[in-house]
Amino acid sequence: MTDPGRVAVVGVTGYAGFELARLLLRHPDIEKTTFFLRESHGNVRCLAELFPQLRGWGDAPCRPLSVESIRTSGANVVFLSTPHEASLELVPELLAADTGLRIVDLSGAFRFQRRETFAEWYKLPPPDAKALAERVYGLPELYGDALPKARIVSNPGCYATSVILGLLPLVHAGWINSTRGIVCDCKSGVTGAGKEPKRETQFAEVGENFRAYNVFTHRHTPEVSDHLGLRASDFVFTTHLLPVRRGILSTLYVWLESSRNAAEIEALYRKCYAGRSLVRILPAGTLPELQYVTNTNFCDIGFALDSAGERLVVVSCLDNLGKGAAGQAVQNFNGMCGYPETAGLL
Amino acid sequence: MTDPGRVAVVGVTGYAGFELARLLLRHPDIEKTTFFLRESHGNVRCLAELFPQLRGWGDAPCRPLSVESIRTSGANVVFLSTPHEASLELVPELLAADTGLRIVDLSGAFRFQRRETFAEWYKLPPPDAKALAERVYGLPELYGDALPKARIVSNPGCYATSVILGLLPLVHAGWINSTRGIVCDCKSGVTGAGKEPKRETQFAEVGENFRAYNVFTHRHTPEVSDHLGLRASDFVFTTHLLPVRRGILSTLYVWLESSRNAAEIEALYRKCYAGRSLVRILPAGTLPELQYVTNTNFCDIGFALDSAGERLVVVSCLDNLGKGAAGQAVQNFNGMCGYPETAGLL
Amino acid sequence: MTDPGRVAVVGVTGYAGFELARLLLRHPDIEKTTFFLRESHGNVRCLAELFPQLRGWGDAPCRPLSVESIRTSGANVVFLSTPHEASLELVPELLAADTGLRIVDLSGAFRFQRRETFAEWYKLPPPDAKALAERVYGLPELYGDALPKARIVSNPGCYATSVILGLLPLVHAGWINSTRGIVCDCKSGVTGAGKEPKRETQFAEVGENFRAYNVFTHRHTPEVSDHLGLRASDFVFTTHLLPVRRGILSTLYVWLESSRNAAEIEALYRKCYAGRSLVRILPAGTLPELQYVTNTNFCDIGFALDSAGERLVVVSCLDNLGKGAAGQAVQNFNGMCGYPETAGLL
Amino acid sequence: MTDPGRVAVVGVTGYAGFELARLLLRHPDIEKTTFFLRESHGNVRCLAELFPQLRGWGDAPCRPLSVESIRTSGANVVFLSTPHEASLELVPELLAADTGLRIVDLSGAFRFQRRETFAEWYKLPPPDAKALAERVYGLPELYGDALPKARIVSNPGCYATSVILGLLPLVHAGWINSTRGIVCDCKSGVTGAGKEPKRETQFAEVGENFRAYNVFTHRHTPEVSDHLGLRASDFVFTTHLLPVRRGILSTLYVWLESSRNAAEIEALYRKCYAGRSLVRILPAGTLPELQYVTNTNFCDIGFALDSAGERLVVVSCLDNLGKGAAGQAVQNFNGMCGYPETAGLL
Repeated sequence: MTDPGRVAVVGVTGYAGFELARLLLRHPDIEKTTFFLRESHGNVRCLAELFPQLRGWGDAPCRPLSVESIRTSGANVVFLSTPHEASLELVPELLAADTGLRIVDLSGAFRFQRRETFAEWYKLPPPDAKALAERVYGLPELYGDALPKARIVSNPGCYATSVILGLLPLVHAGWINSTRGIVCDCKSGVTGAGKEPKRETQFAEVGENFRAYNVFTHRHTPEVSDHLGLRASDFVFTTHLLPVRRGILSTLYVWLESSRNAAEIEALYRKCYAGRSLVRILPAGTLPELQYVTNTNFCDIGFALDSAGERLVVVSCLDNLGKGAAGQAVQNFNGMCGYPETAGLL
Repeated sequence: MTDPGRVAVVGVTGYAGFELARLLLRHPDIEKTTFFLRESHGNVRCLAELFPQLRGWGDAPCRPLSVESIRTSGANVVFLSTPHEASLELVPELLAADTGLRIVDLSGAFRFQRRETFAEWYKLPPPDAKALAERVYGLPELYGDALPKARIVSNPGCYATSVILGLLPLVHAGWINSTRGIVCDCKSGVTGAGKEPKRETQFAEVGENFRAYNVFTHRHTPEVSDHLGLRASDFVFTTHLLPVRRGILSTLYVWLESSRNAAEIEALYRKCYAGRSLVRILPAGTLPELQYVTNTNFCDIGFALDSAGERLVVVSCLDNLGKGAAGQAVQNFNGMCGYPETAGLL
Repeated sequence: MTDPGRVAVVGVTGYAGFELARLLLRHPDIEKTTFFLRESHGNVRCLAELFPQLRGWGDAPCRPLSVESIRTSGANVVFLSTPHEASLELVPELLAADTGLRIVDLSGAFRFQRRETFAEWYKLPPPDAKALAERVYGLPELYGDALPKARIVSNPGCYATSVILGLLPLVHAGWINSTRGIVCDCKSGVTGAGKEPKRETQFAEVGENFRAYNVFTHRHTPEVSDHLGLRASDFVFTTHLLPVRRGILSTLYVWLESSRNAAEIEALYRKCYAGRSLVRILPAGTLPELQYVTNTNFCDIGFALDSAGERLVVVSCLDNLGKGAAGQAVQNFNGMCGYPETAGLL
Repeated sequence: MTDPGRVAVVGVTGYAGFELARLLLRHPDIEKTTFFLRESHGNVRCLAELFPQLRGWGDAPCRPLSVESIRTSGANVVFLSTPHEASLELVPELLAADTGLRIVDLSGAFRFQRRETFAEWYKLPPPDAKALAERVYGLPELYGDALPKARIVSNPGCYATSVILGLLPLVHAGWINSTRGIVCDCKSGVTGAGKEPKRETQFAEVGENFRAYNVFTHRHTPEVSDHLGLRASDFVFTTHLLPVRRGILSTLYVWLESSRNAAEIEALYRKCYAGRSLVRILPAGTLPELQYVTNTNFCDIGFALDSAGERLVVVSCLDNLGKGAAGQAVQNFNGMCGYPETAGLL
């Protein structure tokens, strides 16, 4: 049996990939990390060619990708930081090779309970049914118990993580007045849009600008409804582009079924996340800020309640590359391998 | 009778004050603008000392403030770009002097229909009852007909302008499903917070950061409910601080009473703002961006509708110093004096 | 004879092109502006498709480019806001058509006194010799006298404008100690890099970043030495990318031949630019800032002198799209047509 | 004898203080860190009150400052992250208490070889002569050999560190043509200006802006000349404010005494910093960027040479809070205690 601390990473060229590399290279329980790049980066020999900040302390060799080379690398967990299309193919191939290798997939390919949901929202072929059937949705605060035995973990979307964690206690407690409607107004930094040059992510188009995008069509919408059990017609989920590099802040609006006070709300959230050290509940009256979660793996949650105790605004805040992507992947890895939840993340 | 094109400005030291000065100095129908500063800026002799960008083309002398000196300046309209406390005192004094002088007040002192609303939300004495009784709320698209005869115009809040203009057509048409609840999620640039140095508006606290503030306590809340006739318990209004200098973008969420299509929504908005050249309705499917309204006096409004025609997201966007403050003050001035609505504003 | 206030613009799709359109559309002495686009934008029918901020006030039709259509548009001045390659071809074609049409070329194609300089620094064919022989280098403060009769004006580079204007008085007076060496350390906002999406101008690569680029290879280097008469080995010119949208600030370092005091330096600069209202000399002890020149056509110049009166730091500051490109083009146009120098520019 | 891994920190309220706290709290060789605050923060009980990002993982109690309480805290090294005035007093008091306590002072009070230099440039009383006589200037790459026995280490200025490290190899080798003059054009992020709210560091004054400041009067000037042995009249050192939170980039200009090629320059730098893992020499032709050093303790150095091998531009880049302040303080601490140079810094 291979050693738990030997991992492979496929596709490390984007912003989340780099964050993942950085976290794995300093993870105390990992002995060896091997990086694999797809053809389009065939001539890259080492990480520091892609990320000059790694020069002199965190460089590592990169190899061309093949299922065989992953298998022979000695890894027992492989992270796929790959496009949806690539993950759709790689996951069943890796499972079929039947090597005992376990997978954390950072793409969107295996996030939905129904194959059709993916196909409809991503305009791509549906994911492999067998792989989907056994995958765990990698939100440790919700499905952490399933991680130790998971063969394949689908890492959640960044927006979806912030919204699900922000609403979960209320949904589980049944405190939301469902006749009113729920609004999730989310704002993200630019690294969420990927590293490929695009007109709309140029500095001159983002700096001193702000805009909503993909309203009613954002792919994280069905992730939220799947895992919170919300009807599409009862909630609205929107996304906006902030002129910052990193971070997501989601402002979540609900009306309560019956009047509550701030202490009750705070107690509900604290109870729901008791023992979960990567979700921080702020004291009533304090709202989170992006700057306190960027470059961390925390999801900070705060709230404001009106004087009647009926209208509740919850603010949920995380780093889209940390708890929203690479950090959460490592948190899932920790859960899969039995390491402390925060290993390599503080 | 004094000439319509002679104006006075009190308190030109903040960001909105500068914007106002800039607009008035190049207004085609104004012959003379006199600037008055309060005691705290007693030794400032000319505008370019406060605003170096005016050197060499838009400089103007500044005088110490007194009601008498305003009266003798020959102005027939005075703009008060003063703190609430100062406007509370100046407005009745100027009216009492009975000089025929007309007033555009940019403070919050006279924005509410009931004196108690101001006192409660601003923790200040209530405004003069007589002055309040005759003031016009200076949202030209809503109360433009009252401007030609107005002696005193209260210039709206920046957030309130964006929200009221964004929801007005729906409210007037009765299309909103009031059992659902309305959410107004607003985001503003930093100049909205004024020019006084504060910890929370330092670059190192705003850059790469984002946060909500004053949730359920923001002073523009009752402006919105006053003028849209909404019940406090039916809507939520929140404000956030963007890492940009200028601009407000408000994302407005409603559920419709009955199913509508995008063409109907667009037609409703176009009809409501027909002939109003400073509100631009975007074609269905196009959402406004901050960058296209900054440094202008436009309010851009766009929307997205779900496929069922029930959930509607309206995005309303303006420059907080333009249509949200100084530009709107000039638009009101144009209405008061019978100039074209866009004079000096394009 | 065509009316002086009828102009054509070729290639309005970039940031400088938009700025030019904006300035021309509100120029008081221009009756008609016709826009021509090259093939690659063949299906754009009006300016507001490219620049949504023009909706409702400054829209204008766009036509496919041909020499014939420019000729028949009635224009008597044509602005070329085109790539170097396009200007290399268009300028001789337009001159050959012998229509009396006069040209302001914003590209680099005709900026150098020797054809070989262009070919060497731009890696392109040399410009047409006949056109080059009669072109005026469009820095009005230096060659303004030649504008009224110019058939073709080559609009200077943005960096070159800031450096030449900053050093000109010292060079003309012979005050620089040439044994010491001159350093020009220049910093520019991102719009200077053009509108095409590139990795290095993405928000995530520019925000919270700063870097030097093209050291010893920047194409504006020979413009500076050409027009100031400096030997290449005696000065260094470097460029850096600032995380701002607009503006150039150049810090210029010289040692003086003999000791001077601040009043002498200020007097020298004021005398050199006497009557030149678009260069603002700041009082000794005051340095310019980017924020006071962005969105203007000013070049602000200030300086600091050491106590010995020998080491002099000059700071020269302008908007790369204003005085550094489109605004200067309009200033040249004003000089060509006999309009006031600042017409349409304040 | 107390354990080497027990430290005290005085004055942790600023940006550098926070960075220091963060580094010490995760330093592998430190068992205990005690924080002391001066009177003005008397009611702060724990770090997370000052820095919400520490909630839940890095909080620590804060105590009121007194020499006695530092003495009894068990610390054997104390870091002073205090204003110059406070360090002027505390350093001699702590030495007089004769407790064996060793000091790393982050203020400017003990940076200069001559007491008068400090008094003249800081307009404050000169530092204690006895303390100054035995202090080590804490630039480990230059004076690292003196650290193991140092009782008091004066941590260098952020700008000075970048300039000295950038020029040191050339100065030591005698390669600079001193008849030409040396120019140091430095640019820093806003956290270098401290945490106290000021007009000139407000977001609205820094965003989309850039400016030079304190030309010929910046207090780091004599640090550079002291430690490089430059004559004031032979070099110019200027500072500029960048619209970023963190980081310094210094562009350094020299003319070489005789012609060199790029390989010789690179070899000189590599030799000078051989074995120094926190200075990274970039390959010839590659220039450093701010983004690759922020949040690290590296100083990255790259260069460009003209084709004649005479004009040399060196770019030196670091994080003003890391290698420019708190990180360097920890590096000095490592040297004093015999820990690996990079302990707690990667």
